[in-house]
Amino acid sequence: MTYRSDIEIARAAIPLPIGQIGTRLGIDPDDLIPYGRDKAKISRSFIDTLSGRPDGKLVLVTAISPTPAGEGKTTTTVGLGDGLNAIGRRAAICIREASLGPCFGSKGGAAGGGMAQVIPMEDMNLHFTGDFHAITSAHNLLSAMIDNHVYWGNRLDIDLRRTTWRRAMDMNDRALRQVTAGLGGVPNGFPAQTGFDITVASEVMACLCLADSLGDLRQRLGRIIVGYSRDRRAITAADLKASGAMTVLLRDAMQPNLVQTIEHSPAFVHGGPFANIAHGCNSVIATRTALKLADYVVTEAGFGADLGAEKFMDIKCRKAGLAPSCIVLVATIRALKMGGGVSRSELGREDAAAVQRGCANLVRHVENLRAFGPPVIVAINHFAGDTDAEIAVVQDEAAALECEAILCRHWAEGSAGIADLARRVVALSEGDPPALRLLYPDDLPLAAKIETIATQVYRAGEVTFAPGLREQLARWEEAGFGHLPICMAKTQYSFSTDPDLRGAPQGHTVPVREVRLAAGAGFVVAICGDIMTMPGLPRIPAAETIGLDAAGRIEGLF
Amino acid sequence: MTYRSDIEIARAAIPLPIGQIGTRLGIDPDDLIPYGRDKAKISRSFIDTLSGRPDGKLVLVTAISPTPAGEGKTTTTVGLGDGLNAIGRRAAICIREASLGPCFGSKGGAAGGGMAQVIPMEDMNLHFTGDFHAITSAHNLLSAMIDNHVYWGNRLDIDLRRTTWRRAMDMNDRALRQVTAGLGGVPNGFPAQTGFDITVASEVMACLCLADSLGDLRQRLGRIIVGYSRDRRAITAADLKASGAMTVLLRDAMQPNLVQTIEHSPAFVHGGPFANIAHGCNSVIATRTALKLADYVVTEAGFGADLGAEKFMDIKCRKAGLAPSCIVLVATIRALKMGGGVSRSELGREDAAAVQRGCANLVRHVENLRAFGPPVIVAINHFAGDTDAEIAVVQDEAAALECEAILCRHWAEGSAGIADLARRVVALSEGDPPALRLLYPDDLPLAAKIETIATQVYRAGEVTFAPGLREQLARWEEAGFGHLPICMAKTQYSFSTDPDLRGAPQGHTVPVREVRLAAGAGFVVAICGDIMTMPGLPRIPAAETIGLDAAGRIEGLF
Repeated sequence: MTYRSDIEIARAAIPLPIGQIGTRLGIDPDDLIPYGRDKAKISRSFIDTLSGRPDGKLVLVTAISPTPAGEGKTTTTVGLGDGLNAIGRRAAICIREASLGPCFGSKGGAAGGGMAQVIPMEDMNLHFTGDFHAITSAHNLLSAMIDNHVYWGNRLDIDLRRTTWRRAMDMNDRALRQVTAGLGGVPNGFPAQTGFDITVASEVMACLCLADSLGDLRQRLGRIIVGYSRDRRAITAADLKASGAMTVLLRDAMQPNLVQTIEHSPAFVHGGPFANIAHGCNSVIATRTALKLADYVVTEAGFGADLGAEKFMDIKCRKAGLAPSCIVLVATIRALKMGGGVSRSELGREDAAAVQRGCANLVRHVENLRAFGPPVIVAINHFAGDTDAEIAVVQDEAAALECEAILCRHWAEGSAGIADLARRVVALSEGDPPALRLLYPDDLPLAAKIETIATQVYRAGEVTFAPGLREQLARWEEAGFGHLPICMAKTQYSFSTDPDLRGAPQGHTVPVREVRLAAGAGFVVAICGDIMTMPGLPRIPAAETIGLDAAGRIEGLF
Repeated sequence: MTYRSDIEIARAAIPLPIGQIGTRLGIDPDDLIPYGRDKAKISRSFIDTLSGRPDGKLVLVTAISPTPAGEGKTTTTVGLGDGLNAIGRRAAICIREASLGPCFGSKGGAAGGGMAQVIPMEDMNLHFTGDFHAITSAHNLLSAMIDNHVYWGNRLDIDLRRTTWRRAMDMNDRALRQVTAGLGGVPNGFPAQTGFDITVASEVMACLCLADSLGDLRQRLGRIIVGYSRDRRAITAADLKASGAMTVLLRDAMQPNLVQTIEHSPAFVHGGPFANIAHGCNSVIATRTALKLADYVVTEAGFGADLGAEKFMDIKCRKAGLAPSCIVLVATIRALKMGGGVSRSELGREDAAAVQRGCANLVRHVENLRAFGPPVIVAINHFAGDTDAEIAVVQDEAAALECEAILCRHWAEGSAGIADLARRVVALSEGDPPALRLLYPDDLPLAAKIETIATQVYRAGEVTFAPGLREQLARWEEAGFGHLPICMAKTQYSFSTDPDLRGAPQGHTVPVREVRLAAGAGFVVAICGDIMTMPGLPRIPAAETIGLDAAGRIEGLF
């Protein structure tokens, strides 16, 4: 077989009309709002009819710590959905929408890969149905209304030194991380420090992803705290009368998007917070809708399980009352080998010892995940060069933990290559889901929650807080926000805050650099180490090679 | 009849499935890309098949200088399209998409009004099909790639003091007019002055609106000059390898949008540069497509004829080889009365003398428009309180110019109220269109072009250039850009640069504050007086009253 790129495979696939995908789920064509022929939104009025139905099983796919070798978490999520359908179960997939920023930087596409892809992958990696643009607009409308309020007399006595609401853009633009705005004199308002976060880290994104209805969304948006008055009163989006218009901007975006895999499994693609700088899961409304329509819903949480899975449990499941029946931890031989010290250029050579060393990371993730309760299974996402000896190492390591590690060939073979995993997932999901054990209770103090995550999941020896942060957390507790969970922002490449510290480090120090209260989303963000909430582009951005070919087809998206 | 708001009328209208609107134009359903049930894009492949067909007649609708009383230019454009269809001609409408900025500020909707509206008006005034978001993204990708290039070594030796490319946002946010970016030290790049323009003033918007194909768009984007090197070489988007990815972002946006009026006339709604700070007309590709599919195409140019119509002729028609067969100048009794000195609160009282005084503005516009060649006719957009005496004043003033002024009741009555105008437009459009007389030849020096517009259209006595601007224009001429037309940026409220100077001023001074070379769009922008390329929000922004009602319907959009 000649090698075909993801985009070539995706292009060669023949999608069914999206109405047919909906019909398979029992959605009447009138309840789908088409965006082109192969994308649709599911109407709010239809979703409102579902509340009485029983829920299907929720399967969480997460991964070892990412490496440049790639793990294929989305690919495995997609493949498992296809595999469950292939063995006769009614399954749907729930993944996140893609951000434009990394698409023009260096990240691969967000639609899976090989024979396990969601299509149309080009649309998914570009504007899709416009949800992120709506979120960016709602975010920046609030920003404009803050400065405008001050400009026209500042009735609320907003202290421009204490405005915490920044601006948002779905772009990797490091120059916008810190800006001084309002320059140029009287007509342009008052100079003030501000900055841009990438849209996937916006609190508006988090509100959309955690809201269970449009009404809930409006309430959340209204609770967003944008800053403080000179006498330290919190100023909210509701105080600025902004939340109504923000909700209007998000009205269509709140409806989940339906697309399909190459094998025509239904895929709900909705919401897209990053897992390193945000809470990392698709929307609650998409997951809930999928659970009403399918017997198995396969969803993923971003990056490594230390980030995505922890936040999936402690934020999304805690708030939405969800609980997975089973957790799949994805690993590749190549990634384990890199974790074991092999350079990228040497990955083609068999090195079972390096795989063995790399398994320390996998073992740590399995241990962490088990603490949440549901059964854990390892999926080895097969690459052509993997050897039997290398695969055996992983299976032995897993067996030592009384955990199965299933070899999956969905990238090359589609659903036929992942039937074993699908059958095991069904078996593990039998019966009622095990009670979810959250990592910390609501009533633990905020600093202690951060310490709990850092010590128990990241295995840090110490957590340090930048000056004033403990006092800040205490003030938020006094103001009634002590019950909120924590959204950690940390590099995805390590359990620690040092991206070069691979494997399973322990006893390290987690420095908390900044904390942000997201009163609308309902969590406190703790920014650890050097992680940035606005990425930059690499030396040679992917944008340089993205273009249209002579036939008008997109090239360079991958 | 009880009074119904525009949004109530629009909501009560029952749209035909958009495929039926396409079928009336001879577009196969497979050539329409649906966005919901009542919006669609017309596929590129279909447009490519049209080149051999003859063109219909182009009718330009423009207006007197705007006042807070409202003139109803879009309303009359829509009404005239409906009227032409009602008298048995095959007509289509070409108007611009709406910007979010003014929608949340104070401007009325951009979809017409009363019984002469394009639907779905709520979508049109919000994200519509996402074109503006695509333009914003393409613009800001280029911005990010400039700073990123400098960050990673600056191979092109870009002089950060001489970068002219700013950023864009579809929002009214005066605090972003002048910002200092790249603050915060090494990881965030080099500090530099920049700022944001509203998306409708972006050169990317102009490129999309003036390109006649996707290939032409890519060429134009590549020619965009983003700044200069230390040795004063122009740096282009092509030098930064950005134009391919920008084109990919705009691939879907380049396809015109098709919607319908309340009376089911086809409406092409595509592109949306403002007429005060940009060139003010819908896209060339939409106009050309409509001309291939309809016998009459009614289009509008923004704000007063001094701005929109002049740029329609001297930029759009010059570049695209278009020529209108007839020009409709819209006026209202109320607006003429305000122009004649009556305050807004007194508009309900009959005042024929004030109408008479206000007609100075109308007369000036008629004179200016006639210089372009095509026949001019005045449409009096009727309001309920207009008296016979007031209407007679306008008709007498027009008659003195040997020009007809037709009373039109399309706002209240739809097509039945505008049949007279439609019949006169058909009569005036008979035969080949008169040769278009452009205001200035390509080879006139740039400064002289600006002076020609200011003296002949605005009737200024003098044009002053801020220090260095004449030298700047001369350098652009040396660099080969002397042939470009001028895109004037000026307040829409007056022929002069003083928004309070109503009527038909003459002998005033036009100060040119800044000039910008838009080498991709193909014009030179001359910014005159205090006009801003990023608007601000008013004291009480419309956003404060926009929201969802209990039934989930949008309220406050008007």
